[in-house]
Amino acid sequence: MKKVEHIGIAVNNIAEASKIYEKLLNTGVYKTEEVASEHVLTAFLQSGPNKIELLQATSEDSAIATFLARKGEGIHHIAFDVDDIEAEMARLKQEGFILLNDKPKRGADNKLVCFVHPKSANGVLVELCQNENQESRDKNQD
Amino acid sequence: MKKVEHIGIAVNNIAEASKIYEKLLNTGVYKTEEVASEHVLTAFLQSGPNKIELLQATSEDSAIATFLARKGEGIHHIAFDVDDIEAEMARLKQEGFILLNDKPKRGADNKLVCFVHPKSANGVLVELCQNENQESRDKNQD
Repeated sequence: MKKVEHIGIAVNNIAEASKIYEKLLNTGVYKTEEVASEHVLTAFLQSGPNKIELLQATSEDSAIATFLARKGEGIHHIAFDVDDIEAEMARLKQEGFILLNDKPKRGADNKLVCFVHPKSANGVLVELCQNENQESRDKNQD
Repeated sequence: MKKVEHIGIAVNNIAEASKIYEKLLNTGVYKTEEVASEHVLTAFLQSGPNKIELLQATSEDSAIATFLARKGEGIHHIAFDVDDIEAEMARLKQEGFILLNDKPKRGADNKLVCFVHPKSANGVLVELCQNENQESRDKNQD
């Protein structure tokens, strides 16, 4: 894994949380995006090579809604940047980690993502993410 | 803030957690350290420019023991790298953030640190950290 790509933070109100994190990190939200498949609104802030992703649920079906109801606002997941998500998924499965999806799925920010079960990682929900462009580039080189 | 310096993860057994995170991140623990003032054992792993800090309590007086008792294993804090911790503390105080210490204190890994109350940051315990060497260098340049 190359770096912490982003840290996902579950919030009740993304507009208010954006103002707080803009002050905290002393930088503006540079992108907002709705990920309809995940029932979330997202807002991204940059901190050097890393990102903070604020997440607000848009429906009770959202994993973020469930998280907020159970635990309240706070850190939801850590995402690590990977070059080849399928190879990394295979490696982790081999090592005994429980993956929450069998194949990479499309996440926010043009990423292919896969989640590792928190039970596998001391209570931490871990996301692997790979740039979609990276995959396209790799495929084109085949 | 320049980057995510590290993510602190509270664990029950640092030896077992180290094995898991070595597999997850595909890299070895490069340093372990006891921070007696905080009643914790720490173990560090690198992920590109970022670090994962595993934290085990060595006493019931540790904030990590309290966290584990209340919430179980999981992400305890996010630390951001800063150049000038005192200036950053003054800026955040001015912006209305609640700081958990008035002056920087010594943390693990040769850092000067200050914590921001989770109530100020949507449930996230935020740590500011500055290399002690950085401070010494700055002082010598005065």
